[in-house]
Amino acid sequence: MYDFIIIGGGISGLSAAMYASRLGLKTLVLAEMPGGLITTTHLVENWPGIKSISGPDLAMSLQEHAQASGAEMKYEKVANIEKSSNNIFKIKTGSNEYQGKALLIATGTHHRRLGVPGEKELENKGVSFCALCDGAFFKEKVVAVVGGGDSAAKEAIFLSEHASKVYIVVRKDFMRAEPINAKQVEENPKIEVLYETEIEEIVGTDSVEKVRFKDGREIEMQGVFMAIGHIAQTDLVKDLGVELNEKGEIKINRKTQTNVPGVFAAGDCADTEFKQAITGSGEAVTSAYYAYHFVNTNANF
Amino acid sequence: MYDFIIIGGGISGLSAAMYASRLGLKTLVLAEMPGGLITTTHLVENWPGIKSISGPDLAMSLQEHAQASGAEMKYEKVANIEKSSNNIFKIKTGSNEYQGKALLIATGTHHRRLGVPGEKELENKGVSFCALCDGAFFKEKVVAVVGGGDSAAKEAIFLSEHASKVYIVVRKDFMRAEPINAKQVEENPKIEVLYETEIEEIVGTDSVEKVRFKDGREIEMQGVFMAIGHIAQTDLVKDLGVELNEKGEIKINRKTQTNVPGVFAAGDCADTEFKQAITGSGEAVTSAYYAYHFVNTNANF
Repeated sequence: MYDFIIIGGGISGLSAAMYASRLGLKTLVLAEMPGGLITTTHLVENWPGIKSISGPDLAMSLQEHAQASGAEMKYEKVANIEKSSNNIFKIKTGSNEYQGKALLIATGTHHRRLGVPGEKELENKGVSFCALCDGAFFKEKVVAVVGGGDSAAKEAIFLSEHASKVYIVVRKDFMRAEPINAKQVEENPKIEVLYETEIEEIVGTDSVEKVRFKDGREIEMQGVFMAIGHIAQTDLVKDLGVELNEKGEIKINRKTQTNVPGVFAAGDCADTEFKQAITGSGEAVTSAYYAYHFVNTNANF
Repeated sequence: MYDFIIIGGGISGLSAAMYASRLGLKTLVLAEMPGGLITTTHLVENWPGIKSISGPDLAMSLQEHAQASGAEMKYEKVANIEKSSNNIFKIKTGSNEYQGKALLIATGTHHRRLGVPGEKELENKGVSFCALCDGAFFKEKVVAVVGGGDSAAKEAIFLSEHASKVYIVVRKDFMRAEPINAKQVEENPKIEVLYETEIEEIVGTDSVEKVRFKDGREIEMQGVFMAIGHIAQTDLVKDLGVELNEKGEIKINRKTQTNVPGVFAAGDCADTEFKQAITGSGEAVTSAYYAYHFVNTNANF
């Protein structure tokens, strides 16, 4: 029996695990993979106090801190969560069942898909959702990043270190990148932004060969990187009766409580509008605190 | 003219400064002293990702990060804030006047006083509000820490490295320390907790000589460290019409907006219940984001 079970091993889950363990809660982190989404980030330069660090290094520093504080980590995918009649949460993974008095949902997001022909067929054959993971395979190749946000800008900058040419395919007539990244995109001779442009089809047999756009243009390229956002991974909590917003994000209050007593949420899967590593960490620490009180009094307050 | 003026140079103010500068805002931090309240903390062991660091070192890493990102720092005490008819904030310090389009109040707290005879008279003559600052002056001396919270526990543990004996004076019959610190207090042979005990008077002429308690007992000692909490430093914003709660903390929403458009608050001076360095940092980063939108659209949203 655990006091506190955290589902998700990213920045948020690990921050909560460290704090909860320091607060004396017997704490378990269940994660599919070590480190969460930030491990797909090349360089993190906005974690306060650290001018530059790789995403995996940042995640591992938090994981070590959580484990040194006493938290247990298990790499198992959660299949199902149930609340029993005595208010204990039962969590089934592929191989085990765990019981906990309070839960933190810190499951983050998964990648949004474009939904065009060729995207699914050519995934891992040139279509990728992670520039950091796959960028090095495109040395001196032509690639496109699809998306108009800050992630798209950062991925294009990273890819330009490998590729000979990087297009950014933007549906609107502007990008919403951090100014510091927008400037780098503008000044980078390898990057070209295609505004008001949408992909019709990704064409190739064993690998990506070219992209056909809705305006009829075609460009030969070898890689297409999707950076069109994320969808909260909240399917697991629907059966618990946890309220979601219209985007599928978990509704929380300033104490990170959901509508279900004993169930907290933090980080990218929650309904906070501005989601950053540091804001998720702060939320998760708040969750640990109120979980501590919940476990010790069995009441949200 | 600045886009964003941050009042307060602690963890929250510096986190906001780094983010705001990265977002392209011309950002000024006005601080009385470098680093804020955390600089009075001996060891910080709950900043996610760093197992142990001194308070001053943590603060300086954030300050360097903020300055490297382009934020300006000035060490000037703010005397007065006014909003002009064209919605520009005018901030007067002792020596200068600055103008800004958006404000972050990250002024933190000051120390609460006990209000007993001798406390004021013997301040800096044995009565201290900062164990870290003054602890080393009490080598092989007898001291007391006043307070029943986690800060009192941590200060006592720190002082035991110097003093020969450390009393913790607790009004109630229990302490509210983090379990990890409570355990250390219990196991430390130099520390003795005096429960249900209140100070009547701190006695001494040129320095603390003894403490008289309300039950008539007297104990000879050379130092008394106050750890009885903090009061939000929010006097500055009252004239702006910023709403405070009954504790004098600034009321904010999940976007860290106050009731006054363009004025944000974060960290210890805000009405968030659970206040930690990391939660203040997350809040402040959120402030920077909404200040960025405010400056670029001149509307809270």
